[in-house]
Amino acid sequence: MLDYAPDLDRVFHALADPGRRTMVERLSRGPASVSELGQPMEMSLAAVLQHVRVLEACGLVTSSKVGRTRTCSINSAALRSAESWLADRRTMVERNLDRLGEFLAATDTQEQP
Amino acid sequence: MLDYAPDLDRVFHALADPGRRTMVERLSRGPASVSELGQPMEMSLAAVLQHVRVLEACGLVTSSKVGRTRTCSINSAALRSAESWLADRRTMVERNLDRLGEFLAATDTQEQP
Repeated sequence: MLDYAPDLDRVFHALADPGRRTMVERLSRGPASVSELGQPMEMSLAAVLQHVRVLEACGLVTSSKVGRTRTCSINSAALRSAESWLADRRTMVERNLDRLGEFLAATDTQEQP
Repeated sequence: MLDYAPDLDRVFHALADPGRRTMVERLSRGPASVSELGQPMEMSLAAVLQHVRVLEACGLVTSSKVGRTRTCSINSAALRSAESWLADRRTMVERNLDRLGEFLAATDTQEQP
Protein backbone atom coordinates (compact mmCIF):
# COMPACT_ATOMS: atom_id res chain seq x y z
CA MET A 1 0.00 0.00 0.00
CA LEU A 2 3.03 2.32 0.10
CA ASP A 3 3.01 4.99 -2.58
CA TYR A 4 6.23 3.83 -4.23
CA ALA A 5 7.24 6.29 -6.93
CA PRO A 6 10.99 6.81 -6.75
CA ASP A 7 10.76 9.70 -9.22
CA LEU A 8 8.23 11.52 -7.03
CA ASP A 9 10.50 10.91 -4.00
CA ARG A 10 13.35 12.59 -5.85
CA VAL A 11 11.29 15.38 -7.45
CA PHE A 12 9.78 16.44 -4.09
CA HIS A 13 13.19 16.14 -2.39
CA ALA A 14 14.75 18.34 -5.10
CA LEU A 15 12.03 20.99 -4.69
CA ALA A 16 12.42 21.12 -0.89
CA ASP A 17 15.51 23.33 -1.34
CA PRO A 18 14.94 27.08 -1.94
CA GLY A 19 18.09 27.37 -4.08
CA ARG A 20 16.91 24.57 -6.37
CA ARG A 21 13.43 26.10 -6.58
CA THR A 22 15.07 29.41 -7.64
CA MET A 23 16.90 27.50 -10.40
CA VAL A 24 13.65 25.82 -11.55
CA GLU A 25 11.98 29.25 -11.45
CA ARG A 26 14.78 30.70 -13.65
CA LEU A 27 14.73 27.75 -16.07
CA SER A 28 10.95 27.97 -16.46
CA ARG A 29 11.66 31.28 -18.27
CA GLY A 30 14.11 29.60 -20.69
CA PRO A 31 17.42 27.66 -20.83
CA ALA A 32 20.42 29.01 -18.90
CA SER A 33 24.08 28.17 -18.39
CA VAL A 34 25.30 26.89 -15.00
CA SER A 35 26.99 30.23 -14.29
CA GLU A 36 23.81 32.16 -15.20
CA LEU A 37 21.90 29.92 -12.77
CA GLY A 38 24.38 30.74 -10.01
CA GLN A 39 24.43 34.54 -10.62
CA PRO A 40 21.52 35.55 -8.35
CA MET A 41 22.77 33.31 -5.52
CA GLU A 42 25.83 33.71 -3.36
CA MET A 43 26.99 30.19 -4.15
CA SER A 44 30.17 28.68 -5.56
CA LEU A 45 30.01 27.22 -9.09
CA ALA A 46 30.71 23.78 -7.53
CA ALA A 47 27.65 24.15 -5.28
CA VAL A 48 25.49 25.25 -8.22
CA LEU A 49 26.67 22.21 -10.22
CA GLN A 50 25.80 19.93 -7.30
CA HIS A 51 22.23 21.32 -7.25
CA VAL A 52 22.00 20.94 -11.04
CA ARG A 53 22.96 17.27 -10.66
CA VAL A 54 20.14 16.73 -8.10
CA LEU A 55 17.69 18.42 -10.52
CA GLU A 56 18.97 16.24 -13.38
CA ALA A 57 18.79 13.01 -11.33
CA CYS A 58 15.05 13.49 -10.68
CA GLY A 59 14.32 14.46 -14.29
CA LEU A 60 13.34 18.09 -13.61
CA VAL A 61 16.28 19.41 -15.64
CA THR A 62 18.33 18.26 -18.63
CA SER A 63 21.69 19.72 -19.61
CA SER A 64 24.14 19.58 -22.49
CA LYS A 65 27.71 20.83 -22.78
CA VAL A 66 29.09 22.71 -25.79
CA GLY A 67 32.73 23.70 -25.38
CA ARG A 68 33.10 24.86 -21.79
CA THR A 69 29.46 25.90 -21.34
CA ARG A 70 26.85 23.58 -19.83
CA THR A 71 23.32 24.74 -20.72
CA CYS A 72 20.37 23.60 -18.59
CA SER A 73 16.73 23.29 -19.65
CA ILE A 74 13.61 22.40 -17.71
CA ASN A 75 11.57 19.24 -18.34
CA SER A 76 7.93 20.17 -17.85
CA ALA A 77 6.84 16.48 -17.70
CA ALA A 78 8.51 16.09 -14.27
CA LEU A 79 6.80 19.28 -13.02
CA ARG A 80 3.51 17.91 -14.33
CA SER A 81 3.88 14.51 -12.59
CA ALA A 82 4.34 16.16 -9.18
CA GLU A 83 1.56 18.68 -9.89
CA SER A 84 -0.83 15.84 -10.91
CA TRP A 85 -0.14 13.90 -7.73
CA LEU A 86 -1.04 16.96 -5.64
CA ALA A 87 -4.07 17.88 -7.78
CA ASP A 88 -5.49 14.32 -7.52
CA ARG A 89 -5.22 14.42 -3.70
CA ARG A 90 -6.71 17.92 -3.47
CA THR A 91 -9.61 17.02 -5.80
CA MET A 92 -10.36 13.98 -3.61
CA VAL A 93 -10.40 16.15 -0.44
CA GLU A 94 -12.69 18.74 -2.05
CA ARG A 95 -15.05 16.05 -3.43
CA ASN A 96 -15.39 14.55 0.07
CA LEU A 97 -16.08 17.99 1.55
CA ASP A 98 -18.79 18.57 -1.10
CA ARG A 99 -20.39 15.20 -0.23
CA LEU A 100 -20.33 16.08 3.47
CA GLY A 101 -21.97 19.44 2.66
CA GLU A 102 -24.71 17.71 0.62
CA PHE A 103 -25.28 15.18 3.41
CA LEU A 104 -25.58 17.93 6.04
CA ALA A 105 -27.92 19.96 3.82
CA ALA A 106 -30.14 16.88 3.27
CA THR A 107 -30.17 16.12 7.02
CA ASP A 108 -31.09 19.74 7.73
CA THR A 109 -34.02 19.59 5.24
CA GLN A 110 -35.34 16.36 6.79
CA GLU A 111 -35.25 17.92 10.24
CA GLN A 112 -37.31 20.98 9.17
CA PRO A 113 -40.89 20.81 10.54
CA MET B 1 16.47 36.21 -5.45
CA LEU B 2 16.22 32.94 -3.52
CA ASP B 3 12.72 31.46 -3.46
CA TYR B 4 12.38 31.65 0.34
CA ALA B 5 9.17 29.94 1.40
CA PRO B 6 9.87 27.89 4.51
CA ASP B 7 6.42 26.26 4.25
CA LEU B 8 7.12 25.06 0.71
CA ASP B 9 10.52 23.73 1.90
CA ARG B 10 8.75 21.68 4.53
CA VAL B 11 5.77 20.62 2.40
CA PHE B 12 8.03 19.31 -0.40
CA HIS B 13 10.34 17.66 2.14
CA ALA B 14 7.35 15.94 3.77
CA LEU B 15 6.09 14.67 0.40
CA ALA B 16 9.49 13.23 -0.58
CA ASP B 17 8.80 10.21 1.65
CA PRO B 18 6.62 7.39 0.21
CA GLY B 19 5.21 6.50 3.66
CA ARG B 20 4.09 10.08 4.26
CA ARG B 21 2.58 10.26 0.74
CA THR B 22 0.61 7.08 1.56
CA MET B 23 -0.70 8.81 4.70
CA VAL B 24 -1.69 11.93 2.71
CA GLU B 25 -3.34 9.63 0.15
CA ARG B 26 -5.33 7.92 2.95
CA LEU B 27 -6.29 11.22 4.63
CA SER B 28 -7.48 12.69 1.32
CA ARG B 29 -10.31 10.09 1.57
CA GLY B 30 -11.27 11.28 5.09
CA PRO B 31 -9.95 11.63 8.66
CA ALA B 32 -8.17 8.66 10.26
CA SER B 33 -6.66 7.72 13.61
CA VAL B 34 -2.87 7.29 13.91
CA SER B 35 -3.27 3.50 14.18
CA GLU B 36 -5.50 3.43 11.06
CA LEU B 37 -2.81 5.39 9.21
CA GLY B 38 -0.19 2.84 10.23
CA GLN B 39 -2.27 -0.27 9.36
CA PRO B 40 -1.25 -0.64 5.67
CA MET B 41 2.43 -0.08 6.50
CA GLU B 42 4.80 -2.34 8.37
CA MET B 43 5.77 0.44 10.74
CA SER B 44 5.75 0.88 14.50
CA LEU B 45 3.19 3.27 16.01
CA ALA B 46 6.12 5.47 17.15
CA ALA B 47 7.36 5.70 13.53
CA VAL B 48 3.86 6.57 12.27
CA LEU B 49 3.58 9.28 14.94
CA GLN B 50 6.94 10.73 13.86
CA HIS B 51 5.71 10.97 10.25
CA VAL B 52 2.44 12.54 11.45
CA ARG B 53 4.48 15.18 13.29
CA VAL B 54 6.41 16.03 10.07
CA LEU B 55 3.08 16.32 8.20
CA GLU B 56 1.68 18.55 10.97
CA ALA B 57 4.79 20.77 11.10
CA CYS B 58 4.42 21.70 7.41
CA GLY B 59 0.66 22.27 7.70
CA LEU B 60 -0.41 19.33 5.48
CA VAL B 61 -2.16 17.61 8.40
CA THR B 62 -3.95 18.67 11.59
CA SER B 63 -4.74 16.33 14.46
CA SER B 64 -6.75 16.33 17.67
CA LYS B 65 -6.82 13.89 20.57
CA VAL B 66 -10.00 12.63 22.24
CA GLY B 67 -9.31 10.17 25.04
CA ARG B 68 -6.52 7.93 23.80
CA THR B 69 -7.28 8.36 20.10
CA ARG B 70 -5.51 10.97 17.96
CA THR B 71 -7.47 11.68 14.77
CA CYS B 72 -5.70 13.22 11.76
CA SER B 73 -7.25 15.31 8.97
CA ILE B 74 -5.76 16.76 5.80
CA ASN B 75 -5.45 20.50 5.17
CA SER B 76 -6.13 21.05 1.48
CA ALA B 77 -4.69 24.62 1.58
CA ALA B 78 -1.16 23.24 2.01
CA LEU B 79 -1.67 20.81 -0.89
CA ARG B 80 -2.95 23.74 -2.97
CA SER B 81 0.07 25.98 -2.20
CA ALA B 82 2.53 23.34 -3.45
CA GLU B 83 0.31 22.52 -6.44
CA SER B 84 0.08 26.24 -7.37
CA TRP B 85 3.85 26.68 -7.24
CA LEU B 86 4.29 23.76 -9.68
CA ALA B 87 1.40 24.86 -11.92
CA ASP B 88 2.80 28.42 -12.20
CA ARG B 89 6.21 27.09 -13.29
CA ARG B 90 4.69 24.60 -15.76
CA THR B 91 2.41 27.27 -17.27
CA MET B 92 5.45 29.52 -17.76
CA VAL B 93 7.39 26.71 -19.53
CA GLU B 94 4.44 25.92 -21.80
CA ARG B 95 3.83 29.60 -22.62
CA ASN B 96 7.49 29.98 -23.65
CA LEU B 97 7.28 26.84 -25.81
CA ASP B 98 4.14 28.26 -27.51
CA ARG B 99 5.96 31.55 -28.19
CA LEU B 100 8.91 29.64 -29.65
CA GLY B 101 6.49 27.67 -31.84
CA GLU B 102 4.84 30.88 -33.08
CA PHE B 103 8.25 32.46 -33.77
CA LEU B 104 9.42 29.41 -35.76
CA ALA B 105 6.14 29.29 -37.70
CA ALA B 106 6.45 33.02 -38.56
CA THR B 107 10.09 32.56 -39.62
CA ASP B 108 9.06 29.59 -41.76
CA THR B 109 6.32 31.67 -43.48
CA GLN B 110 8.74 34.53 -44.19
CA GLU B 111 11.21 32.11 -45.75
CA GLN B 112 8.60 30.64 -48.13
CA PRO B 113 9.18 31.82 -51.71
